[in-house]
Amino acid sequence: MAVLTDVEIQKELTSLNGWQRNGSAIQRVFRFPDFKAAMQFVNKIAEAAEQANHHPDIDIRYNTVTMALVSHDSGGVTQRDVRMAGTINKIAG
Amino acid sequence: MAVLTDVEIQKELTSLNGWQRNGSAIQRVFRFPDFKAAMQFVNKIAEAAEQANHHPDIDIRYNTVTMALVSHDSGGVTQRDVRMAGTINKIAG
Repeated sequence: MAVLTDVEIQKELTSLNGWQRNGSAIQRVFRFPDFKAAMQFVNKIAEAAEQANHHPDIDIRYNTVTMALVSHDSGGVTQRDVRMAGTINKIAG
Repeated sequence: MAVLTDVEIQKELTSLNGWQRNGSAIQRVFRFPDFKAAMQFVNKIAEAAEQANHHPDIDIRYNTVTMALVSHDSGGVTQRDVRMAGTINKIAG
């Protein structure tokens, strides 16, 4: 799948609430009341990631979860990442 | 709780298989056959962390999980971290 250009990524980010560029990836930070709520969110994302066979990098710091997306096999951000970011936002509500 | 000295941490690490110093924390990397197995492990650790009210930093990269422990409120590694590292190793089997 084609790697998006910087301009294309910036355009996609305008409709992906909360997501931003971080190096070669796009990422969003989510905060929850506590660790338990954070883990519930992570498990919902894990299920969606398995279904899509596209897995975000997930960092859990107590109540704070950072999701990062990059298509490692393509060497950059692709439409797969944009789609998964949209799915994650839908789950986050 | 008292922060352990470098020498005390090194001594504890000799009986904590796979754990090593990383900056102000101790950490261990765990590898699994796939993302699903990694998430199952993370959920077991999450349950134990809630019970102990001591939460590791958890990074998930598909099949690879990194756990890091530090007592933020004490400003370093304490016996709480050593205990939780032992619990995590027991769960990892």
